[in-house]
Amino acid sequence: MVSLNQISARAELERLRYQIEEALEDFVQKRLSQPDAPVMRLVSDILLGGGKRYRPVLSVLAYQACGGEDKEKALNLALSGELIHTATLVHDDINDQSKLRRGKPTLHTTTSQSHAIIAGDYLFALGFGLGGHNDDRVVERIASTCGGIATGEVLQMEHIGNLSTTPEDYYAIVDGKTAGPFASACWGAAIAAEAEIYADSMDIFGMELGRAFQLVDDLLDLTGDPAMGKPRGTDVHDGKMTLPIIHALTMLHGSEYEHFTDVLTNFSDERWGEFTELIGKAGSLQYVRQLIENHIERALNALEELPESRARTLMAELTKMSERRRT
Amino acid sequence: MVSLNQISARAELERLRYQIEEALEDFVQKRLSQPDAPVMRLVSDILLGGGKRYRPVLSVLAYQACGGEDKEKALNLALSGELIHTATLVHDDINDQSKLRRGKPTLHTTTSQSHAIIAGDYLFALGFGLGGHNDDRVVERIASTCGGIATGEVLQMEHIGNLSTTPEDYYAIVDGKTAGPFASACWGAAIAAEAEIYADSMDIFGMELGRAFQLVDDLLDLTGDPAMGKPRGTDVHDGKMTLPIIHALTMLHGSEYEHFTDVLTNFSDERWGEFTELIGKAGSLQYVRQLIENHIERALNALEELPESRARTLMAELTKMSERRRT
Repeated sequence: MVSLNQISARAELERLRYQIEEALEDFVQKRLSQPDAPVMRLVSDILLGGGKRYRPVLSVLAYQACGGEDKEKALNLALSGELIHTATLVHDDINDQSKLRRGKPTLHTTTSQSHAIIAGDYLFALGFGLGGHNDDRVVERIASTCGGIATGEVLQMEHIGNLSTTPEDYYAIVDGKTAGPFASACWGAAIAAEAEIYADSMDIFGMELGRAFQLVDDLLDLTGDPAMGKPRGTDVHDGKMTLPIIHALTMLHGSEYEHFTDVLTNFSDERWGEFTELIGKAGSLQYVRQLIENHIERALNALEELPESRARTLMAELTKMSERRRT
Repeated sequence: MVSLNQISARAELERLRYQIEEALEDFVQKRLSQPDAPVMRLVSDILLGGGKRYRPVLSVLAYQACGGEDKEKALNLALSGELIHTATLVHDDINDQSKLRRGKPTLHTTTSQSHAIIAGDYLFALGFGLGGHNDDRVVERIASTCGGIATGEVLQMEHIGNLSTTPEDYYAIVDGKTAGPFASACWGAAIAAEAEIYADSMDIFGMELGRAFQLVDDLLDLTGDPAMGKPRGTDVHDGKMTLPIIHALTMLHGSEYEHFTDVLTNFSDERWGEFTELIGKAGSLQYVRQLIENHIERALNALEELPESRARTLMAELTKMSERRRT
């Protein structure tokens, strides 16, 4: 059941998402009449191609929940994060050889790989430029977060197909690639709002929410509905060691373990049935669902450290929604 | 004839280069014991693999010539530029499919293309992080310079093999890719030294020197000594429209023009003799040498706007040396 309060919260979140969309559009439009127009033309579609705008919405809300009142400052910080996030998507899509992103052809397939590498670099530069107007500590955090993303990605590549990947390895990857940027966005919002006192809580909130976010992604890869635009089994195909898989490898024994490792190392679409049956036997989906709940709870607890406000309520709503998302 | 003064200037420049090398080594070492060690290990060789350190030396000297006294601040700015420069090299080498850089195998050949893309992103982040401690205007300039590099590279790709490329197209590419970073380093040094009054002169100085630098590179591609570690004809092979080629296309007529376009569009090592003969007939090397001299002269004139100092003398020396470099 969705309550009236939830409906109104969702409408407000949608309005905020729309504001971010508008700010991004302004940002793109301005650059289309500047000397860097040739590169901006390359990336404008992917920048304005929708997406949930989860991180920038969160960043603006965190800024407001921490008492910040300069909406433009909040939007700039949020856009900075979104530009950098998009940069990593463009480069990830090259590295994963992905043909589609949000149902549209990826940049390296519509232009060329070289163009996409440069376009990603350009997006990084834009993101850093926009984020650079903040407190030195925020700038440093943005840079170290990007270092963490790179580290997470290198670790992930090193663990491709590695069946002895541990949960600790997994969290090192996730904390670098996904949770780190969430934490950085929320922590940075607190600092930008000059609410040092809430910075740690925002850091924890972002980190826990980011972990939950990644685990939901892992689950959706196994249970997602292709009709919702979420292809299924991509991680398994790519040999990515997601937590459900790591868990199943720990829980299964004897012939079932042998069977599962055989499915993983010789995976093809025809083996999807075997794969889900074994994952089911291991209880891995329930396990990961429980972990998600724990991370969400920790995120909500950290949020409680902030004074009550409408922004805080919306952050809590967004947090709960993230657990139930389908795409 | 090299004078005693020149010998002592070169020794000082060498000492400064060594200091930069040391600072870079410290920077790398520190990160090798931090969480981002897995990515730093990827890039440490290319970061510490030598190179002329032309830009960082210039950046430190410009800071000093503008009256700056905080050596660490100067070094940080210089390293920031070098990190970003190295990031672009790593990505350029992927895009150009280069096997060697400074006589050593390129990163994407020793690791993988994916690793090299991520490693380049990491270097960008490090560079932005280090540069982020400066005045907002410097941070913005660093970002817009990177935007200019991306724009220059996209323009360059779009002009590959395009025989109607104009000198204006050429300068748009060079100003983005090469001269822009030189100008940004020198302008930023003036701002960091709080010498606003010299910022424009430093901007012009860097821009003119950067143009000369690129033109010398273009010449070396045609006249360089492979024994000095400079492969010959790479630009011609890659279909890059360098100024000597653009000039020859303008000057040659009739059958010579036809011949030259045929050599360019069906180039192979065996046609090197034909190529140089036609370039010689067109007088393109002399023309480009004259342009280099003009740019160098304009750079030196801009430098004269600064008060006399040892740093200024060394900058002038470095500028003159750049005209005569062989690698």
